[in-house]
Amino acid sequence: MDVAVIAGSKSDKKFVEGLLKILDDFGVDYDFKILSAHRTPCELVEYLREAESKGVKVFIALAGYAAHLPGVIAAHTVLPVIGVPLATSVLAGVDSLLAMVQMPSGVPVATVGVNGSKNAAFLALSILALGDESVKAKLLDYRKKMAEEVLESNNP
Amino acid sequence: MDVAVIAGSKSDKKFVEGLLKILDDFGVDYDFKILSAHRTPCELVEYLREAESKGVKVFIALAGYAAHLPGVIAAHTVLPVIGVPLATSVLAGVDSLLAMVQMPSGVPVATVGVNGSKNAAFLALSILALGDESVKAKLLDYRKKMAEEVLESNNP
Amino acid sequence: MDVAVIAGSKSDKKFVEGLLKILDDFGVDYDFKILSAHRTPCELVEYLREAESKGVKVFIALAGYAAHLPGVIAAHTVLPVIGVPLATSVLAGVDSLLAMVQMPSGVPVATVGVNGSKNAAFLALSILALGDESVKAKLLDYRKKMAEEVLESNNP
Amino acid sequence: MDVAVIAGSKSDKKFVEGLLKILDDFGVDYDFKILSAHRTPCELVEYLREAESKGVKVFIALAGYAAHLPGVIAAHTVLPVIGVPLATSVLAGVDSLLAMVQMPSGVPVATVGVNGSKNAAFLALSILALGDESVKAKLLDYRKKMAEEVLESNNP
Amino acid sequence: MDVAVIAGSKSDKKFVEGLLKILDDFGVDYDFKILSAHRTPCELVEYLREAESKGVKVFIALAGYAAHLPGVIAAHTVLPVIGVPLATSVLAGVDSLLAMVQMPSGVPVATVGVNGSKNAAFLALSILALGDESVKAKLLDYRKKMAEEVLESNNP
Amino acid sequence: MDVAVIAGSKSDKKFVEGLLKILDDFGVDYDFKILSAHRTPCELVEYLREAESKGVKVFIALAGYAAHLPGVIAAHTVLPVIGVPLATSVLAGVDSLLAMVQMPSGVPVATVGVNGSKNAAFLALSILALGDESVKAKLLDYRKKMAEEVLESNNP
Amino acid sequence: MDVAVIAGSKSDKKFVEGLLKILDDFGVDYDFKILSAHRTPCELVEYLREAESKGVKVFIALAGYAAHLPGVIAAHTVLPVIGVPLATSVLAGVDSLLAMVQMPSGVPVATVGVNGSKNAAFLALSILALGDESVKAKLLDYRKKMAEEVLESNNP
Amino acid sequence: MDVAVIAGSKSDKKFVEGLLKILDDFGVDYDFKILSAHRTPCELVEYLREAESKGVKVFIALAGYAAHLPGVIAAHTVLPVIGVPLATSVLAGVDSLLAMVQMPSGVPVATVGVNGSKNAAFLALSILALGDESVKAKLLDYRKKMAEEVLESNNP
Repeated sequence: MDVAVIAGSKSDKKFVEGLLKILDDFGVDYDFKILSAHRTPCELVEYLREAESKGVKVFIALAGYAAHLPGVIAAHTVLPVIGVPLATSVLAGVDSLLAMVQMPSGVPVATVGVNGSKNAAFLALSILALGDESVKAKLLDYRKKMAEEVLESNNP
Repeated sequence: MDVAVIAGSKSDKKFVEGLLKILDDFGVDYDFKILSAHRTPCELVEYLREAESKGVKVFIALAGYAAHLPGVIAAHTVLPVIGVPLATSVLAGVDSLLAMVQMPSGVPVATVGVNGSKNAAFLALSILALGDESVKAKLLDYRKKMAEEVLESNNP
Repeated sequence: MDVAVIAGSKSDKKFVEGLLKILDDFGVDYDFKILSAHRTPCELVEYLREAESKGVKVFIALAGYAAHLPGVIAAHTVLPVIGVPLATSVLAGVDSLLAMVQMPSGVPVATVGVNGSKNAAFLALSILALGDESVKAKLLDYRKKMAEEVLESNNP
Repeated sequence: MDVAVIAGSKSDKKFVEGLLKILDDFGVDYDFKILSAHRTPCELVEYLREAESKGVKVFIALAGYAAHLPGVIAAHTVLPVIGVPLATSVLAGVDSLLAMVQMPSGVPVATVGVNGSKNAAFLALSILALGDESVKAKLLDYRKKMAEEVLESNNP
Repeated sequence: MDVAVIAGSKSDKKFVEGLLKILDDFGVDYDFKILSAHRTPCELVEYLREAESKGVKVFIALAGYAAHLPGVIAAHTVLPVIGVPLATSVLAGVDSLLAMVQMPSGVPVATVGVNGSKNAAFLALSILALGDESVKAKLLDYRKKMAEEVLESNNP
Repeated sequence: MDVAVIAGSKSDKKFVEGLLKILDDFGVDYDFKILSAHRTPCELVEYLREAESKGVKVFIALAGYAAHLPGVIAAHTVLPVIGVPLATSVLAGVDSLLAMVQMPSGVPVATVGVNGSKNAAFLALSILALGDESVKAKLLDYRKKMAEEVLESNNP
Repeated sequence: MDVAVIAGSKSDKKFVEGLLKILDDFGVDYDFKILSAHRTPCELVEYLREAESKGVKVFIALAGYAAHLPGVIAAHTVLPVIGVPLATSVLAGVDSLLAMVQMPSGVPVATVGVNGSKNAAFLALSILALGDESVKAKLLDYRKKMAEEVLESNNP
Repeated sequence: MDVAVIAGSKSDKKFVEGLLKILDDFGVDYDFKILSAHRTPCELVEYLREAESKGVKVFIALAGYAAHLPGVIAAHTVLPVIGVPLATSVLAGVDSLLAMVQMPSGVPVATVGVNGSKNAAFLALSILALGDESVKAKLLDYRKKMAEEVLESNNP
């Protein structure tokens, strides 16, 4: 298992699909769990240990509201933790963005944009690519395709 | 021990003094600890258990930045948890306010104003007063004094 | 009567249902009234006295816009007052959140998240639980169920 | 007495001086009191009745934090109430601005800018001028002087 | 004509209906015009002079976006100017609120809440009531009815 | 005269110096006036006509608070109007930024950053450069110098 | 080619139509391309050179999210660059507004309101009008029609 | 060279010192350059290629205002890019935070807190640690020391 993806609530599942599809497309071995920093704090820590023992390299955590999930994960590991603030409350994700990105010194969360779950996947891939040339090749390829798609949109 | 006061960082100590003085003035038995949700996550949980075993009734947690401390405490107890967002980052406490108050359903944090540590003490006292007539009497007395002070400020 | 729930406007009723259901489920004796700090200021104060005389232990106040209701209640009692900011104006509840949480020293409002009426119920229960072991047992039970629900959502 | 000026706290006094000087300069009969919506709710209502009985025409209320003062006054009178949000908390007056201006339908507060106590005076004067030609003449004169001052600032 | 109501754009008309109905209900003589500070700056100033010559006592101006309308009116008159910020842009009225309420010293705009056109009517009525006992009586009556409506909503 | 620079208040002068120096350095013929949209509305319009008659090509307007100045100028001319929001109120320039940039359709203000008076000069120069090769050459030269300065800052 | 209009993403096309129609109505020669600062950084720079070689006078760039497009264009040209922040993320365009308007000294972006693509067209026209009397005449004519439309909306 | 640290302006140097000291303490081979996305766009891209050819694994970019630097870097590489928003404008870093974190899909920036340059170092170390056991050991050791420091602050 290379990536462990954790969402804070069952209702956040819809934000995860695109993310998991990218990991699938890139042939990355991952695990997806719903675990809450507030409702299942002990099971979360257990899962983190289990994931580390299985050789996980990157954690991705998605959460809305006072989104503590990635910060709590980061408190228990020195592996890179990527946080995706979700706009699930009425505050448009400003709450979850600030609750993720403003971590105290020593315990960083690599935060991406509000609802930016796809970018969490790409950031995880860019980290995995440091140790896996095939992922890097696919990333470079994906960039090329993205560029082509933009350029093609100018054709009538 | 009736109240356990926990600050997230040594540098938050200056926000605690007024709070502790109020608890002292009201004759409340309390404990004060510096414990971080991110730097000492295990010791924090241990302390929570210890405090509960000593009969603590209310937790007060002060933290700045992505202020997870009261939320993490609330995840481990069903005792009332009061959160004080501190304006220690450049974002004027908006980050810590939202990271505290926007807790998910089922795990509330009783949030007071930014840097409102004194109000955390008064809120704790209002809760303790439910089971302690002497605290209630002192609270009513304090309210009277507050009113008198305001009225006296109109005298030349 | 243990809890008095007050909403600032008839149109806020829809935010109260979930809250009252939780109090019902926990077997708590409560009263629900619609009273406005601005439209019925005198009747509000009368009701507060009446509620106190009936032994109310906690006030829960829900309001939108310049949400003064919980603060005005707190000005007339030393009982714990829980405030629920409602996102009923176009400002997404930022107005009501700030108008509740930023209370001056000495008169706190225990503020929960925007539209967080359920958490107001849980916070009230955590306060009542200090003097009622059966409420505490139910709270602990509820937490267990919440955790199980999260964990079960991982099963196919 | 034409204008009753009320500040919510002794520490708000410094914001009142310029305001009172303008009223003095325009020869307006006013009263200034420090009264808190939260710390002296009953004395505030008493004062409002007293002021109305003395023929007050306009209320000006200055307050910071969750600034309920003008709204609470407006709840007890149909006279015009002018609110001045003060930037006394760390939130730069955004809290007091929203807690004043976002009043529910039927109970308006005429809100001026953050720390805009002078404009509260000018707004009160514009209202008094409707029934007092001498105030109107002085206002027109003041406007002329303001314009001249701006124009003169262009001279070397 | 006692009140001149000015909206900044044809598309703002829907925000004016409730306002005009209140003025109608209170028997107030008013005029309603659509005039833009930016698209018809000269016609606006002409209209202001015309309205003043007809004895207008209060201006009410509604505008969205960079809502200069009430400020520009206030620059040309010493009569009370009430501003209603409209949430017509994607910024939820924060733009129009700040563009109205933050007027420089000497040229105030009496600002009400975002989309608070009804409160603009009530504020105008409270000003007119200073010189018209019948309006005052109706305002007091309206307040009574508002209170009754709230109280009645508690009946099953 | 190629550029007319207008500040809304004498106290805004300190924000203009750097701007005027750039225009001087580029050999641009300009005029600087202090004129307020709210305190000198008629003199402002007069000046705009005068400036247009002198062949001005670009207006630059600096203002704080509810910064209507550039918008009011834009209402009276079809020449390009550049607006500089100033952080002179306690709201850090968010008020003036929104009061400038959010202009209604048909009457644009070319807004630069908060306190960005130098960029107003550079934007004016980029517009003048369209009709003046020497200004364009100087702009290209300035860009080169800026780049060199950055690169040199890497030398020990 | 007088104006080059560049949108950052295929999905931004709907914001461009009104803009292009205005340029068409004014008889301006323009080019429209979709090019991303992040997905096609090299092709963007190539296009800028090409556009400059074709005599383009003004760039208009529309983008949402962390809207770097106009700033990146401004880094490569001394021609005027107009930026249109789009409200395509959940943050209502506040992200794109700040990412455009807050450019560092020396590299300005002439920013218009959120989703203000029409105003970008009018701003471009006001710049082109400096060197083209027919555009100026049409702009003056358009202003007249805008005023007439406002005035006519007052007719029954 | 493992890490390339790039600041957008000479004046940002003070935010880099703590960051570089951490990299030094962990024995990481790094390069530090001042390069601006807007003032030296071509030199920036050249440096990125050079850094990649030297085997750099992670980029760290610090910038204030409309902070495009990390996003522009991310547009030219698939290596992980860490962004540090700096509070160098009057907007307290909200501008640079949003201009970094809200990147479009496919081109992520791993954003840390405002002025959080130390956390950028720790995030880079957590990425490097995936391929370097000695860095991981030092990170775990640092975490232990952080915890001890917190715990010791409770001793008299």
